[in-house]
Amino acid sequence: MMELKVDLGERSYPIYIGEGILDDIVDLFNKHRISKLSPILLVTDDQVAEFHLDKVLELLLKGGFQVVSSIIPAGEKSKSIAQFEDLITVAIESGLDRKSTVVALGGGVVGDLAGYVAASYMRGIAFVQIPTTILAHDSSVGGKVAVNHPLAKNIIGAFHQPELVLYDIATLRTLPERQIKAGLSEVIKHGFIRDADFVAWIDHNAYKLLELDSEALEFALYHGCRIKSIIVSQDERENNLRAILNLGHTIGHALEAVAKYNGLLHGEAISIGMVGAARLSVLLGNPEHIYTETKRILRKLGLPIQLPKQLDIDEIMVAMMHDKKFDSGRMTFIIPTEIGEVEISNQVTLEQVSQVLEQLKQEE
Amino acid sequence: MMELKVDLGERSYPIYIGEGILDDIVDLFNKHRISKLSPILLVTDDQVAEFHLDKVLELLLKGGFQVVSSIIPAGEKSKSIAQFEDLITVAIESGLDRKSTVVALGGGVVGDLAGYVAASYMRGIAFVQIPTTILAHDSSVGGKVAVNHPLAKNIIGAFHQPELVLYDIATLRTLPERQIKAGLSEVIKHGFIRDADFVAWIDHNAYKLLELDSEALEFALYHGCRIKSIIVSQDERENNLRAILNLGHTIGHALEAVAKYNGLLHGEAISIGMVGAARLSVLLGNPEHIYTETKRILRKLGLPIQLPKQLDIDEIMVAMMHDKKFDSGRMTFIIPTEIGEVEISNQVTLEQVSQVLEQLKQEE
Repeated sequence: MMELKVDLGERSYPIYIGEGILDDIVDLFNKHRISKLSPILLVTDDQVAEFHLDKVLELLLKGGFQVVSSIIPAGEKSKSIAQFEDLITVAIESGLDRKSTVVALGGGVVGDLAGYVAASYMRGIAFVQIPTTILAHDSSVGGKVAVNHPLAKNIIGAFHQPELVLYDIATLRTLPERQIKAGLSEVIKHGFIRDADFVAWIDHNAYKLLELDSEALEFALYHGCRIKSIIVSQDERENNLRAILNLGHTIGHALEAVAKYNGLLHGEAISIGMVGAARLSVLLGNPEHIYTETKRILRKLGLPIQLPKQLDIDEIMVAMMHDKKFDSGRMTFIIPTEIGEVEISNQVTLEQVSQVLEQLKQEE
Repeated sequence: MMELKVDLGERSYPIYIGEGILDDIVDLFNKHRISKLSPILLVTDDQVAEFHLDKVLELLLKGGFQVVSSIIPAGEKSKSIAQFEDLITVAIESGLDRKSTVVALGGGVVGDLAGYVAASYMRGIAFVQIPTTILAHDSSVGGKVAVNHPLAKNIIGAFHQPELVLYDIATLRTLPERQIKAGLSEVIKHGFIRDADFVAWIDHNAYKLLELDSEALEFALYHGCRIKSIIVSQDERENNLRAILNLGHTIGHALEAVAKYNGLLHGEAISIGMVGAARLSVLLGNPEHIYTETKRILRKLGLPIQLPKQLDIDEIMVAMMHDKKFDSGRMTFIIPTEIGEVEISNQVTLEQVSQVLEQLKQEE
């Protein structure tokens, strides 16, 4: 079991990563003083519940915890105000109090939704994350929680740090192949932002990762989380530096919004967004290999690199302007300046973005 | 104009109090760097709008600010998830961004609701409060923002400190008499908690306050805010000490819930709750005068001291157990131990509470 400390002063917390560590859940909950006197609300989705809920419930109940579980439909549509309100109702009816804990067992959707419930219920109670996807390694660092509005993704939320994150690699083995690839998109994003060596390692170990090799996964998730945690530690509330984590997200979020959260997985949208950012980089005068390498490695991981042809460019442009990153009338892009290095730019013109979107439809 | 600093480290902010200071709104907004490039969302209710909205809009627009205003129905019912979601929709559609500010022009309902919008939109944007009630002096200190759930009051919320509070005493003159009295309930609560001299001063100046004498009001609001700010500075997130501000609220909130937020104003419910807390105090062995004095002064301010006879005691007991202050299976009460002193107690039994509620129906 590896342990990574996310350093945020009095809000610091550890991420435990390892094969089979779900078996240690009671010890870890005890170590972190999760209350046994107050009910826990365990939130999961119908897909994850099938594989892992019984086990987690049994362990926690045997360990002396009071647990109420709530199963939401899998998928981005559950990250809604309506679902949020339903969970609050369950929390009240189950008698959750200030010492209670909300546990998220699942991927990014479950984590974001349950995290926002934890952030808001009684103005904030304890929160534990048990990610069951590769993608969720990303949302398990940094405390960003949110739900979507029909007009904009993640627009309603908070910063709310968990007590601990328990990342059992064994849970990843039930993921469909497409989810695995999409998850690796955010792993390599952390490399593209800050660590050329890590990109080279992923390039070299791509097939092991796709086969869910235990050692390779542990290494990759640890390093992905580590890069993110270093950045978040320096800028918890995204006043400036933290924005670099949005590489690929300005375009990616807009694609998701226009595709109405269907059809494209988050990691897939980000993959296309990273190719777009690399193209913008070249357009701004950076070396061509940033684009060719970004594209080659993403393709090697089985990720999409082409903008779906049926999506309307103008609609994507409008969605981008609704994004949180559209600030005081300017569009902010994270631009790679080398493999493993990025800068924050608001020098990109609308014409350049529109041109790159057209090019992204032609990628092969 | 008096200025009170609420000391919360990097989240510190000033409260400006004075007669006619709404005229200085542009100067104060400029001083505190409220953005002119990003739209402001001004939230108010239909009653307050009638008296003050045109003026505030005119001043801000002349001052170079972009303002979108949203008028909600007056009353506690607007502190709902549905109203919250509507305001988020307005914020998105009006293009509010990370540098935008939400301004609350109104009483506690407007402040709590608009504050929760500011806390949640894009995970938190700037917030300014312009209270127009006496009661709102309370919610303008400490950053507690929230909406209600049909099953529990203020259960969904956050801690979100404003950039500044602009408290113009002139706006209080349009308040109905009943609202004035109810507002004074929270003012004297701060005295009962921490400052016997302030209680004596209010006792002596009760009629001036009820007539909205400018100097008396400025003094009372300044001192009410000051006492609260000292307590909040020591315990921003209500881990312990801050709970003393809930004097009268355990019973008071339950009364409001059972009365379905109708029929009883918040300050009126708190007044009855403070008499109840004083009765509990005597039941626990403290001197009788705590109860008689509490009751005498509240009555002098024209506040209700008797539990409405039609309310069901069992329903009130159940509502209390849904309260945030019902923690790990114990009911927490703030008990006066002298006029101007309180302690936090979880020694109160359900029988004692039920007995006091019966007595409260008999008060005269």
